[in-house]
Parts: sequence; structure tokens; C-alpha cells
Amino acid sequence: MPDIGIGLVGGGYMGKAHAVALSAVGAVFDTPLRPRLEVIAASSAESAERYRRAYGFARATGDWRDLVADPKVQAVVIASPQSTHRAIATAAFAAGKPVFCEKPLGASLDDAQAMVAAARASGLPNMIGFNYVRTPATQFVRRLLAEGTIGTPIWFRAEHTEDFLADPALPATWRTRGRANGCMGDLAPHPVNCLLALMGPVAELSARIETVHATRTGPDGPEPVTNDDQAQLMLRFASGVMGHLFVSRVATGRKMGYSYEIHGTKGAIRFDQEDQNAVHLYRAEGPEATRGFARILTGPAHPDYAAFCQGPGHGTGYQDQIIIEARDFLHAIHSGQTLWPSFADGLAVSQIIETAFAASETGRWHPVPQA
Amino acid sequence: MPDIGIGLVGGGYMGKAHAVALSAVGAVFDTPLRPRLEVIAASSAESAERYRRAYGFARATGDWRDLVADPKVQAVVIASPQSTHRAIATAAFAAGKPVFCEKPLGASLDDAQAMVAAARASGLPNMIGFNYVRTPATQFVRRLLAEGTIGTPIWFRAEHTEDFLADPALPATWRTRGRANGCMGDLAPHPVNCLLALMGPVAELSARIETVHATRTGPDGPEPVTNDDQAQLMLRFASGVMGHLFVSRVATGRKMGYSYEIHGTKGAIRFDQEDQNAVHLYRAEGPEATRGFARILTGPAHPDYAAFCQGPGHGTGYQDQIIIEARDFLHAIHSGQTLWPSFADGLAVSQIIETAFAASETGRWHPVPQA
Amino acid sequence: MPDIGIGLVGGGYMGKAHAVALSAVGAVFDTPLRPRLEVIAASSAESAERYRRAYGFARATGDWRDLVADPKVQAVVIASPQSTHRAIATAAFAAGKPVFCEKPLGASLDDAQAMVAAARASGLPNMIGFNYVRTPATQFVRRLLAEGTIGTPIWFRAEHTEDFLADPALPATWRTRGRANGCMGDLAPHPVNCLLALMGPVAELSARIETVHATRTGPDGPEPVTNDDQAQLMLRFASGVMGHLFVSRVATGRKMGYSYEIHGTKGAIRFDQEDQNAVHLYRAEGPEATRGFARILTGPAHPDYAAFCQGPGHGTGYQDQIIIEARDFLHAIHSGQTLWPSFADGLAVSQIIETAFAASETGRWHPVPQA
Amino acid sequence: MPDIGIGLVGGGYMGKAHAVALSAVGAVFDTPLRPRLEVIAASSAESAERYRRAYGFARATGDWRDLVADPKVQAVVIASPQSTHRAIATAAFAAGKPVFCEKPLGASLDDAQAMVAAARASGLPNMIGFNYVRTPATQFVRRLLAEGTIGTPIWFRAEHTEDFLADPALPATWRTRGRANGCMGDLAPHPVNCLLALMGPVAELSARIETVHATRTGPDGPEPVTNDDQAQLMLRFASGVMGHLFVSRVATGRKMGYSYEIHGTKGAIRFDQEDQNAVHLYRAEGPEATRGFARILTGPAHPDYAAFCQGPGHGTGYQDQIIIEARDFLHAIHSGQTLWPSFADGLAVSQIIETAFAASETGRWHPVPQA
Ligand SMILES: NC(=O)C1=CN([C@@H]2O[C@H](COP(=O)(O)OP(=O)(O)OC[C@H]3O[C@@H](n4cnc5c(N)ncnc54)[C@H](O)[C@@H]3O)[C@@H](O)[C@H]2O)C=CC1
Ligand SMILES: NC(=O)C1=CN([C@@H]2O[C@H](COP(=O)(O)OP(=O)(O)OC[C@H]3O[C@@H](n4cnc5c(N)ncnc54)[C@H](O)[C@@H]3O)[C@@H](O)[C@H]2O)C=CC1
Ligand SMILES: NC(=O)C1=CN([C@@H]2O[C@H](COP(=O)(O)OP(=O)(O)OC[C@H]3O[C@@H](n4cnc5c(N)ncnc54)[C@H](O)[C@@H]3O)[C@@H](O)[C@H]2O)C=CC1
Ligand SMILES: NC(=O)C1=CN([C@@H]2O[C@H](COP(=O)(O)OP(=O)(O)OC[C@H]3O[C@@H](n4cnc5c(N)ncnc54)[C@H](O)[C@@H]3O)[C@@H](O)[C@H]2O)C=CC1
Repeated sequence: MPDIGIGLVGGGYMGKAHAVALSAVGAVFDTPLRPRLEVIAASSAESAERYRRAYGFARATGDWRDLVADPKVQAVVIASPQSTHRAIATAAFAAGKPVFCEKPLGASLDDAQAMVAAARASGLPNMIGFNYVRTPATQFVRRLLAEGTIGTPIWFRAEHTEDFLADPALPATWRTRGRANGCMGDLAPHPVNCLLALMGPVAELSARIETVHATRTGPDGPEPVTNDDQAQLMLRFASGVMGHLFVSRVATGRKMGYSYEIHGTKGAIRFDQEDQNAVHLYRAEGPEATRGFARILTGPAHPDYAAFCQGPGHGTGYQDQIIIEARDFLHAIHSGQTLWPSFADGLAVSQIIETAFAASETGRWHPVPQA
Repeated sequence: MPDIGIGLVGGGYMGKAHAVALSAVGAVFDTPLRPRLEVIAASSAESAERYRRAYGFARATGDWRDLVADPKVQAVVIASPQSTHRAIATAAFAAGKPVFCEKPLGASLDDAQAMVAAARASGLPNMIGFNYVRTPATQFVRRLLAEGTIGTPIWFRAEHTEDFLADPALPATWRTRGRANGCMGDLAPHPVNCLLALMGPVAELSARIETVHATRTGPDGPEPVTNDDQAQLMLRFASGVMGHLFVSRVATGRKMGYSYEIHGTKGAIRFDQEDQNAVHLYRAEGPEATRGFARILTGPAHPDYAAFCQGPGHGTGYQDQIIIEARDFLHAIHSGQTLWPSFADGLAVSQIIETAFAASETGRWHPVPQA
Repeated sequence: MPDIGIGLVGGGYMGKAHAVALSAVGAVFDTPLRPRLEVIAASSAESAERYRRAYGFARATGDWRDLVADPKVQAVVIASPQSTHRAIATAAFAAGKPVFCEKPLGASLDDAQAMVAAARASGLPNMIGFNYVRTPATQFVRRLLAEGTIGTPIWFRAEHTEDFLADPALPATWRTRGRANGCMGDLAPHPVNCLLALMGPVAELSARIETVHATRTGPDGPEPVTNDDQAQLMLRFASGVMGHLFVSRVATGRKMGYSYEIHGTKGAIRFDQEDQNAVHLYRAEGPEATRGFARILTGPAHPDYAAFCQGPGHGTGYQDQIIIEARDFLHAIHSGQTLWPSFADGLAVSQIIETAFAASETGRWHPVPQA
Repeated sequence: MPDIGIGLVGGGYMGKAHAVALSAVGAVFDTPLRPRLEVIAASSAESAERYRRAYGFARATGDWRDLVADPKVQAVVIASPQSTHRAIATAAFAAGKPVFCEKPLGASLDDAQAMVAAARASGLPNMIGFNYVRTPATQFVRRLLAEGTIGTPIWFRAEHTEDFLADPALPATWRTRGRANGCMGDLAPHPVNCLLALMGPVAELSARIETVHATRTGPDGPEPVTNDDQAQLMLRFASGVMGHLFVSRVATGRKMGYSYEIHGTKGAIRFDQEDQNAVHLYRAEGPEATRGFARILTGPAHPDYAAFCQGPGHGTGYQDQIIIEARDFLHAIHSGQTLWPSFADGLAVSQIIETAFAASETGRWHPVPQA
């Protein structure tokens, strides 16, 4: 099997996840290319070198430009902060290299638009890191919807709730500064991508975005929190279906509350990432007395599960989502064809987030600009 | 123990529930009065007589005026359709008799206001039938909130979802005609009462109310549905807390989806009426490694449970809620003091529902008039 | 509707439950007879009088013989300790009165045999208080089994676990003295009745019965516990199916852990009384990808639910089980025919418990004597 | 980081899992050695070559002796059928190479004893593949027990239930032939290892092992099933605690029912592998009204979780267990010290299984020989 040289920017939370995924993907899936870990870049030469040793890359650099320029790097994976996405991606496309970029697509709508433009101009494969729609469970839900198992959807509710800033006594950090690092900037892209994947485009929305704990203790005393803690959106999908989204980083008790429920004319679906190997399905079929939500455990009968384990109910985890992403990115590189979810999908997400900020200001329904 | 003569209007779904409750309440609780089933009224003399025999009343009538006028009837329980509430309650107060009225308080905001005025003018005890806040579980949640167990609330989400009209092929009936019988008119009063009980007054709201299945087959062919199937409200409580409510009668798979969750700075609560004997409580206390939502089964340690059973986890049911209501109504009659929830509480609910209809028209946030 | 005079022996935990049930049953169900609360007996005249006022009986007595002899008492309900069951039941039959007796059937196998003999000799209706098999959920499970929904059963597991004596620091009381008050004597009859109802007769068994906390503090210092805390039984049903039962009164965290699961060739069933309004059903039907345990909420489509509430998922509770029992006892009295579960069913339960004690001694499999 | 050449025998279900784990482990954990995939062996040269390409090994062979003899192979991982374990392990030890062997330790007690003897004689690191005790959840449970969080254990119940042979119409295969491939031979080792890990040695047991479907259709018509479908064991641990184990491959509806519950004097624990990222913990602490089983989601606060993801509740899966195993095997090789669970632990498991077969014959309690 031919291999391909990968450059990875960032070695933190997601940098590590991608390093592991690139190491494992070739053994898990029958990929057309086998990744070769060429260069890792980080914010300093020292940290890059530490990551290199930890993850097994050939070379390290404190300057991502070296990585992009390296002739042995044939594709770039960006897992550095949102503020860096645009410059790196643009440079990589300019150097003729396919790009995988972690969500969100840049730090602003402007970034996202520029990145889509650069990707289009290059004609190169591009992909964005919305990993949660990759679970066998959520892929299966997409299939259920496509097959009409629950009839016509009439209501959609999602949330993405975590509690990492729930304690008001937690200090101010970069997370409490700047719109891109707020709950809408950082968490919302995942469920917004999810709702687009499951329900199609959003036509209009009304929103309320708020900072619950307006002040936190910074290094020099009390400091204003300059981004949001939680937000809710009422949605109208282009299909006519009504929906709701709630996102929060102050949701005490919730660790990974990426969850959704869909009511249809013939059934309903419920899913919660805190139990990521199960889909709850209700079908309005058969005698009333035997109807109920079935807890379906994922297994080889569900998308992308069998590659991880032959036994049903044995379960996949967070890391496996990233491996599935890596598989698709390798297919995209090999075929030269961008695969879903692309930068354009990332832009669609950013449009909704931007619209929500505007709607929260006016207190009215706003149409969502379509790509 | 002194007894008291009760007149019951209506012998259907709720009429029966009240008849059973009045029969049992004296043995369950240590009530100051023991109910004597005097007169039952229904829409015809025949049905009233049938109910009389079934429930054990002394007399029956096809005209509620007879019941109100009957000297042996010392208090009136109204369990007939919303359109009849106002006339019956007003007459009962005029005759000097305390009134318990099923939710909602009349068929319109106008009815509700008139009924509160009549109650106030009479100075007589009055009560409204919001039974779901009576469960040991939800009473316990009120206590948890009052005691600050979850710190300061910052988010509240509730729903009341059922699926009795989920099938688009179901025919048009009185349920699909007239605002008072729609989802907002019929189901919403319960969760709106709940959110007021748990979180206090609502300052403003934005809403979307909709009819999903606009036409159903009536006796003479296709017929327009003239009330709503589902609705959502974004809420701002007077306390500053943000919230959301969703109500639906077309929520396939949901049978009694009266549920809520509350995030606080120190904990969180989740409850679902489909598992009415459990409260899920998370407390941000102790080592991170042992934190999780505890499923607490109701028992003698929770409000109003011990009267039903000495064993914890043995469970109460729907009928028991109505028995708790009857106990409080007997106390109110005996003391001459109106007890919560009163007609005024029913009016507060109607105000929110009226405001939601207006807000759904404008697409904007509307302030909620306070009583 | 004709009424019938009832005498109730005992006004404690179960005495109250029966008093409430007798008050409510006529309104809940379309019974052939309406109970009239004539006489209540307790261990003293004072307590009996207190119960009389609380539950609304006409007369009270400190001697159950008065009750049995009272000409207005036409049927007797026994809710006093197991040691009293035999004498009271025997006297009631001798006086020509049908008897409902709380579980277990007397304090020993000898009592149970004598009581069945007395019942048979009298030809009078008799019933035993196994209320948990009365829930709509467990009645529904019996129907599922009868209809073959899960194919041929191949494994049955049950438990009845509570934690009222889990704390080793709890003092010695009558509960920790005497075999009849131990876990096998007091708790086991319920699940043993359940397994007979669901799976038919037990052919043989092997058992281990043990006292976990052998000493507790009594009024005069440390005192030996003279009955068992927990026990397990391996079972072979007459049908050939293998099974297991575990009972415990020291099962920390379990409040009402009456639960069972049944594996069949075409499906499986799971039930837990701590969520008594749900049955979990798996059917090996349709595509593998959509199979899972369905959580079915009880509703009007399930046995004996509709009388309590017209709405599905609204739930019944502990007290409602006793009302269902009362309904059947009234039918038995009216028809003169003993209805399930009878004293003979109580004896079958006692046989299994007796056999388990013997098997626990020998460490071998013992055949169970059939009635 | 120094690397180490690995030879892997078997490329099927578990062979793949180990290949992936060996590829990923160096990036996931800070291992002292980085695995180099040298040689893969399978039952034929063709399949071995196919696996080589799929998993990225340097060389392939149809004869495991080549692999053992290969000088670049410094440690051996055995993932071939139980019948092959003994010969391969013995040869590898003789060649001076550490061995990781999949469960169970050979096809018989005799094999297991010989393998332990060979391992001991060699003085080389050895490990057995009991992966389920490796989850962050079950590791956490071990910690809870060690710290006395639930007080003194008094009851332990475990099961390992799957349904891959539940359908009686499934044909005879190698799985239905030979004791080592039956439910006790194939599935039981996992939960037996688990109960030893959680509760310590078993002193004595009583058992019932059975073949539910005695005949299945083979290639030449009906064929007897020569191994067991399900089994139950009553246990007495050396600590005095009583326990129970049930194993089944015909448990319709159960996909990965490796689950257990432990009652202690101060708390209780419940776990089910079908929800492998959660531990349910009850603590008899604080007011009765707030006690309940807490569903604790695994996260960085739990053993071996943080290496997979920084976010709590994001979840690990089946494959991650094998990566944890690989990490420990590398540590064992590097230090020259055998780490838990060793071949000796595998033998202890085999002793219990052997004893269960004997006890099932006699119907009595049998002491378990201790290593
Ligand atoms: N898909 C998902 O589930 C998640 C996605 N993310 C996304 O991943 C990206 C990275 O976030 P984390 O890994 O959490 O951050 P992190 O702080 O853990 O790691 C950031 C890494 O980027 C490197 N870096 C920073 N500036 C750089 C520069 N100018 N040049 C080269 N390297 C630089 C740092 O050295 C560090 O290795 C973000 O876009 C974030 O939104 C983060 C967490 C989860
Ligand atoms: N709290 C709760 O959980 C519930 C409350 N309700 C409320 O209870 C009330 C009654 O509803 P249901 O029992 O479901 O209705 P239903 O249709 O089952 O029964 C209505 C009863 O009212 C009687 N009735 C109708 N018109 C009358 C008249 N003019 N004079 C005297 N009697 C008359 C009928 O004969 C019938 O017995 C409504 O206000 C409804 O909103 C209904 C269901 C549940
Ligand atoms: N079906 C179920 O779920 C339950 C059944 N039971 C059974 O119910 C029976 C009563 O138990 P509890 O109500 O828990 O006991 P309890 O101690 O609460 O009440 C016992 C009652 O019997 C009366 N009594 C005692 N000796 C008497 C005598 N010689 N003559 C007349 N009255 C006498 C006492 O005054 C008291 O009112 C027992 O057989 C018990 O096994 C108890 C609890 C639950
Ligand atoms: N830890 C766990 O969760 C599991 C453990 N296992 C264990 O793993 C082992 C392998 O089982 P599976 O992977 O399910 O089997 P499998 O049938 O999927 O694969 C067996 C592999 O062994 C190879 N093989 C067979 N005979 C051989 C020989 N003489 N020389 C070299 N290679 C040979 C085959 O070519 C094949 O690649 C067994 O001991 C089994 O008990 C199996 C499944 C799960």
C-alpha cells in the first residue's frame, strides 16, 4: 500500500487524537494510503520536539511554515487554535496540499469564508473535524432518517452541554476571553453540524446568548468574561420542521451532553453522547401494548462499527471517531475528491452561529444566509 | 370526624379520578373532614345516573344548577369541560360554596379573570387541579430548590409531550377544534404551572406555536384543524434565569412526557413523569471521580409519600396525586383558607399562555403581565 | 349494587393498605359488591379504635374473635402478623366467611397446610395477598409469556432485594428474631409466588441461606440474630428451564428490588419493581440493526390499567395493586369461587421455602414436594 | 525511544485488535518501548500475507515456528485458537521471548498448568488477555473496593451474557463442538477473572452447566452440540462473601452482558459492559432523602482514561482496552517483571472452570484448588 507523508500542526488535546488516529487507521481500515508521520509543528520548538517523541513523528518544528513547506509533507492536519486555522490552511492549499482542519473553520465568519474560497481556488481535498457525527450511532440515525423509519420529522431538539466552567469560582483563562472561545464559538459548531447533517439547512432562527458568570478572577483580580456561557436557539429548518438547540459550558453534571431527539410521524429517535453506543428508537408499529423506545446497541450491523470489533455491544469510543475521520481524509486525498464534511460545511455552521449572535441582539427571527 | 357533602360535576376521565380520590382520601390521610358523596352532575341525567351508581353518590342530576343549589352539597368539584368552568364556579361561589376546579381555569383568559374575581369577591376557598406538581418527586424537587441544594439555578428546561394525536390519519374531533382544546390550551397549563412552582414568575417570553397536521378527516370529509399541535417558548424568569418549554400532542413515543431539568451553580436536577417515582440529582460535591446523577427513589423521606406506603421505592401513581389534591382541598374548606394552587395561580398560567400566542404572532419577546 | 360487610384484622402497614383499597375499589372498578367497613380488630382495643376512626370502620375490637363472630361481618381480611394467620383464618372459615389473608400463609409450612385444609373443608373462597404479581406490568408479562412472544423460555432470574437491615448498626427487633420474620420467611414469598406465576412449578432446587450480621444490639446488649439476611436458590422448573433467585434485606441501595428477567428463544423480558410502570421487551425480529430492548410504559392497552387512568404512561402505584386484589376478592365472594392466588398457591410457595432451608443444610439439590 | 520487534500469531478477531493496539499504543501512552510490527503468523501463508498487508507487518508466515525463531521478533503475542496456545507459548519461552497470550490459558486445565510451568521455568514476563478488567470503569471499581467506599462486601453477582447462539436454527460450527469452545470454555474466563480481580479467591462453588439446544444442523444433517450453552455457579469467596455467576451464549437480547453488582455494608456498585463508560455507585451516606445510585461517567479522574481523551464522558471503547493491555505488556517486557494478569492468573481462572464442571456433575459444593 502506498504511504503518504502527513504534517500535523498542534500536539495538544486534538493533536494527540490525530496522531493516534493516523497511527492506527491503516490497521483498522482498508485505507488506500497508509499515513507516514513526517512533521509535527507546535507553538515552540521544544513542545514540538516533545510531541515528536511522544507520537513518533520524524521531525518537529516550532514554525508551521516549515511543515507546510516540507516536501515530504503531502497533506496537512490542523489541530491548533482557531486563530491559526486560516493562515495555515491558506498556505497549505497554496503549496498544493490537501487540508484537514479541526472545527471551527477559523475564528470568525470572515475566516471561514476566506478558507472556503482558498479551498475552492486550490481544487484540493479539504475536510473539517466534526467527529461526533462519525459515531456508528449517529451515522445509523442518518440512515434511519434517510430510510423514513420514523416517517416525516416534525420536531428536532439538540443540546451540547458540558460543565467545565460551571463553577463560578473557576478563574478567567483564554477560554473566558474572546468570542471564538465562548460556548457558541467552541461548542456550538458540533451540534450545529449535527443538526444540519440530520435535518438539512436552517431557514431562520431566533436566539438568546448569554454570559451567566460575567466576572471571574483573573491574574490581576476580577476580570470581565468576554464570551458566552450558554445559549438557546429556536430553529425553522428549510424543510419546515421546527427545532431547538441549547448549548452550555456551565451545565453542572453534564460531561458530554451532545444529544438530540427527533419526533417523526411514524416514530422517534433519541441519542445522548454520554451513552454513545446506543440509539433509542420508537416505531409506531404493531400493537400499542408492545410499543416502546428500543435501546439499540451499536454493532457490526451499524455503519463503521465492524472495523473496530466483531462483537456487537462491545463499544467504540472517542478516539475511534477520529480514526473514522482519518480514514475518510485518506480516501479524499487518494481520490482527489473532497468528502463530507468539507470546509463548505464548516462555513454553513459558521453562518448559523453568526446569525444567532445577530438574532440574540434583536430578539427577532433572522433568516440564515445560505452558502 | 365531621363529614362534608361534596357535589361533583363531570364523571369522565377526571370526574372518576376525583370520585375515587374522595372515597379514599379519608383513609389515606388524617383529614379534618371526611367527604360524603352527595350529588354528581353530568351532561345528561342518564350519564349522571350511571356515574352515580359507579362511584357511589347519593343523587345524580343532568343539570349542574341542581347540584350547586342542593343544600347537602357543601363544596363543589368541577371536572367538566373548560367551557363550563366559569358558569359553574361563579354559581357555586354565589351559593357560598368552596370550589375545586380542574385545569385550565376556564376556556380563555377572560374566563380565568372572571373566575378569580368571583373567587375573591366570595372570600371562599378555591383550588385548581394541577396534580402533577403534587407527586412526592416534584414536591421534593421544590424542597431541594428551596434548600439551595443545587445552588443558584441558571437554566430551566421543561416539556410536556404526549402522542395521542401523533398519527396524521387520526380523525378530527372536538380535540382538534378550538383554541382551548389545543396543545397550548389543554396540555401547556400543567408544565406552565410547574415552571412557576419551581422557578417563580416569568418576566418575558418568545414563542412559536404551530399546527403540524393542518387538516384531518372529519365526519364530512377533510376538515381544518383549528388549534395547535406543538409549541415552544423561550423564557426569561423574573429571577433572571433563562428557560425553555416545549409542549406537544404529536410527540410520537411520548406517553406522559412531563419532564424538566434544572442546572444550578452547585448541582442539577432531572425529572421525567414517565418514571414518576425517581428524581435525578447531581451535586458538585466531593471528589470528581465519584460525582454523577443519583437516581433517588421516592419513599417515606419524601413529601406525602408515607401516607401511601411505608416502604421506600414501592411507588405512587397517577391516582395518588388526586388524593393529595383532595386532602388539601379538605384542609382549605375546613380552615376557610385558600391553599396553593389557587384560582389566582390558574390565572397566572393563563396569562403566560395568552402571552405566548401573542409572541408567536410577532416573533418577538413579549413581557408577561403579572397578576 | 349490593354491599358486603368486611372485617379487617390489623391496621398497620398492610391493614391501612386494605382499608384504603376497600374504600376505593367500588369507584375504581365495576365490582359486583361494594365493601362496607364494619369491624376492625387490632392487638388492643385502643389501637383498634384509633384505626377505626382513621379508616372509617363502624366498630373496633381488641379481640379478633369478636370480629369473626360479628354477624354483619360477611368476609374477613387478615393483615396481622404471620403467627396469627392460622387461628384467624380457621375461625373465619368455621364461621362460614370467605378469607383474604396477607402473605405468607401462616408462620410455618405446618400452618400453611392447616390453612389450606381448613379452606378446602369449608368450600369457601380464599385468597392470599401476593400483590406484586397484580401490577399491569407483571400481568402483561404473563400475557406475553402465554402468547409466546419471547418463544420458549430458557432462563429465569429473579430477585427481591431491599436494604432495611443493611446497616449492621441497626438494633435487634422482632424482625431479627424467628425464621418466619427472616428474609426467606418475609420477603421470599413474593418473588417465589412470582416465579411460579411466570414459569410454573419448580421441580428441584439447591440453596444457600445465610445470616450476614449474626449479632445485633438488643435491649440487653448483643443479641444473636435468629433468622436469615440473604439467600440464593438455583432452580430447575418442571418445564426444564433453569433459574435463579436471590433475596436480601441487606442489599444496600435497593429499596424495592423485586425484579426478574427471562430469556426465551425469540426474545427476552426484564422488569424491575423500582420502575414498576415499565416492561423491557426484546424481540429477535426484523433487521439486526433495529433490535433492542424496548421500554414499554404501561397504559390502557395493559391489564387492569385503564380503570386507574385513561392516559398511558401516567402510572399506577403500590396502593393500586391492593385495589386490584380487593376487586378480585369481591368477585370471588360474589361468585363463591376461589380466584387465583388462593391459599393453595400460598402453600406451594411455602413448600419451596421449606425445601430451600433443607437444601441449604445439605448443600445438595432437593426435589420440591408438589401440592 | 527504543523499539521492540513483535511477532503476532493470528490475524482474526483478536489478532486485528492487537495489531491496531500495537500501532497506536506508543502514541497513546508514554511507553518505555515502541512496538515494531515484525512478523505475523496465521494458519496459512496466504492469510498471513493478507494480514501483513492489512496491518502493516514486515513479514508473514504460515508457520508460527518461523515467527518464534525469527531473531527480530523479541516478544510474542498469541491470538490464535486456544488449542494452539500451549505449543506456541512454550516454544516462545524456550526461545527466551516474553509472551502475551489471549484468554483462556490453553484449551484445558492441563494446558494451563503446563503453560504456567513453562513461564515460571523461563523467568520471562508473561501476560494473559483479560481485557474487560482494563476499562477505566472496572479499574475504578477496583479502587472503590480497595478504598472501602462501599464498606465490607457481602454479596457479589456477575454475568457474561451474549446471544450469538440464541437462535436454535443457527447451524453447528466449531463453536458448538468441544468443551473449550463452549460457553464455560470461551466466555466464562472473562467474568471469572473479573470476580477474582474484584473479590479475591473463590473457596468453594456449586454449579449447573447445560446445553439448551442439544442438536443443531451440521453439514451432514442434525449434529449433537458437544459443549454448553449456559451455566450458573453459586460461589463462596475465601473472604466469606457469597456470590453468583451466570454465563450464556443464548441470552437473547444481550450483546455484551459482562456485568456485575456488589453489595457492601456502606454502599453498592453496579456495572454493565453494555454501558461501559458508566459506574453506578450508591453510598449509604447523608440524608436518606438524597440517596440513590449515582451514574458516574468515566473521565480523566478515572484510571487510564486521560490518555485517551481530556474530556470527561467522551468515552473509551473496546479497542482502547487492548491498547491498555499493550501498554502493560511493554512495561513488563521493559522491566523484565511479569505484570497482572499473568499466566498464573489465567490458571486460577481455569481451576474454577474445571471445578464448576465437576460440581455440575455431582450437584454438590466443591472446594476450589488454590494455585
Ligand atoms: N473535535 C473536537 O472534539 C475538538 C476540537 N478541538 C479543536 O481543536 C483545535 C485545537 O484545540 P486543542 O487541541 O483543544 O488545543 P490545545 O491547546 O490542547 O493544543 C493546541 C496545540 O496547538 C499548538 N499551537 C498553538 N499555536 C500554534 C502555532 N501558532 N503554530 C503551531 N502550533 C500552535 C500548541 O502548541 C498545541 O500543541 C481547536 O481548533 C479546537 O477548537 C478541541 C477540542 C475538541
Ligand atoms: N388534571 C388532569 O390531569 C386532567 C385534567 N383534565 C381536565 O378535566 C376537565 C374534564 O376533562 P375530562 O374528564 O377529560 O373530560 P371527559 O369528557 O372525560 O368528561 C367530561 C365530563 O363532564 C360532563 N359534562 C360535560 N358538559 C357538562 C355540563 N354542561 N354540565 C355537567 N356536566 C357536564 C360530561 O358528562 C362528562 O362526565 C377538563 O377541564 C380537562 O381540561 C382532563 C384530563 C386530565
Ligand atoms: N403484601 C405486602 O406487600 C406486605 C405484606 N405484609 C404482611 O402483612 C401482614 C401484616 O404485616 P404489617 O402490616 O407489616 O404489620 P404491622 O406491624 O404494621 O401491623 C400489624 C397489625 O396487626 C395487629 N395485630 C397484631 N396482633 C394481633 C392480634 N393478635 N389480633 C389482632 N390484631 C393483631 C396490630 O395491632 C397491627 O395493627 C404480615 O403477614 C406481613 O407479612 C407486610 C408488609 C407488606
Ligand atoms: N479477549 C477477548 O475479548 C477475546 C478473546 N478471544 C480469544 O482470542 C483467541 C483467537 O480468537 P479469535 O480471534 O476470535 O479467532 P479467529 O478465528 O478470528 O482468528 C484466529 C486466527 O488464528 C490463526 N490461526 C489458527 N490456527 C493457527 C496456527 N496453527 N498457527 C498460526 N495461526 C493460526 C488464524 O489464521 C486466524 O488468523 C482465542 O484464544 C479466543 O479465545 C477471542 C475473542 C475475544
